[in-house]
Amino acid sequence: MKFGVLGTGAVGQTIAGKLVAMGHDVMMGARAADNEKVLGFARRTGGKAGTFAEAAAHGEMVFNCTRGDTSVAMLTTISGELEGKVLVDIANPLDFSQGFPPHLTVSNTDSLAEQIQRILPGTFVVKSLNTVNAAVMIDPSRVPGHHTVFVSGNDQHAKGKVMDLLRSLGWQSIIDLGDITSARAAEQLLPLWVRLFGVLGTGDFNIAVMKA
Amino acid sequence: MKFGVLGTGAVGQTIAGKLVAMGHDVMMGARAADNEKVLGFARRTGGKAGTFAEAAAHGEMVFNCTRGDTSVAMLTTISGELEGKVLVDIANPLDFSQGFPPHLTVSNTDSLAEQIQRILPGTFVVKSLNTVNAAVMIDPSRVPGHHTVFVSGNDQHAKGKVMDLLRSLGWQSIIDLGDITSARAAEQLLPLWVRLFGVLGTGDFNIAVMKA
Repeated sequence: MKFGVLGTGAVGQTIAGKLVAMGHDVMMGARAADNEKVLGFARRTGGKAGTFAEAAAHGEMVFNCTRGDTSVAMLTTISGELEGKVLVDIANPLDFSQGFPPHLTVSNTDSLAEQIQRILPGTFVVKSLNTVNAAVMIDPSRVPGHHTVFVSGNDQHAKGKVMDLLRSLGWQSIIDLGDITSARAAEQLLPLWVRLFGVLGTGDFNIAVMKA
Repeated sequence: MKFGVLGTGAVGQTIAGKLVAMGHDVMMGARAADNEKVLGFARRTGGKAGTFAEAAAHGEMVFNCTRGDTSVAMLTTISGELEGKVLVDIANPLDFSQGFPPHLTVSNTDSLAEQIQRILPGTFVVKSLNTVNAAVMIDPSRVPGHHTVFVSGNDQHAKGKVMDLLRSLGWQSIIDLGDITSARAAEQLLPLWVRLFGVLGTGDFNIAVMKA
């Protein structure tokens, strides 16, 4: 399958590298096509390198792995290339600029995923994977037990495609929280994630939803 | 041990009833001492009935089980009775007045627990138990596995006392998230709780923190 991965940070590199290793046709996109990190990705993995627009055009499914506080501005510039596609939004609107603990730049009555859905009305935005670190995203077996990943989005078919991909990554406990407004719940988990990271001393953790 | 329980709703009734059943000396407090619910509690359980001020004066440890949007105003009026005591803040600042999903009346850069700690500088505020429903609070075995409850507060000794009480209720996985600002993380779990309640169709659930 053809994937576009927007963003060259740890999350983008990890997701894109795993998708290449799984045999998919992956293009990573950066602001400029000669970006050192995107060229490094292509060299190391055999994946493709391009601009944000080229990567979005390449993918049947596209991952937003850009920094949460820059995502909306960037995605606005490539809305045409994302038309009719599934955009998996992994970004978190965390602001560390005022020190610890970070706060969310949008929360409670809105979410980054909703902002993105509003500027991309012809795109099927699905929030997912933002509640675990990059290593766990692509290898849930790093954490023992049936821990949980969430999906939020307005389109059931798009969520189904993302859930299929999550299963192919090894995820067994996947909970559909509801429409895109339910991304507020997933994004508001980040303050807990940051605290647990401090307490546990590792990013290899997750929460499991357990019920009677 | 002597406990005060502020609030006569489902959470207050459940906590106070359990504490009486465990052999503790419990006074439930309401706005007025002749409140029907607080008298009903005393009649049913053999516990004591009083005003908010009387229940706060009675307890060595006091539980805030009032509605989150009314807690600060009420607690301000009984600050003297709470001086030097441990106040376990179970309340959630949820506002359902604008429909579903509810939003938090305070979040992200502040929390209800911090607001309470600020108006009660001589009280040891510990946020806990706000992330599960009343039935699970007092009987974690309703949900299978080692699921997790959190504590947040500025005073280690006060948190230790609350953790002892949690253990006596059957909690085995207790995570100290940090100082009172970490209550933001626990309170921001509520939007997820509300969504999961809708998806799972039961309040008998919880999250377990799992790590490598």
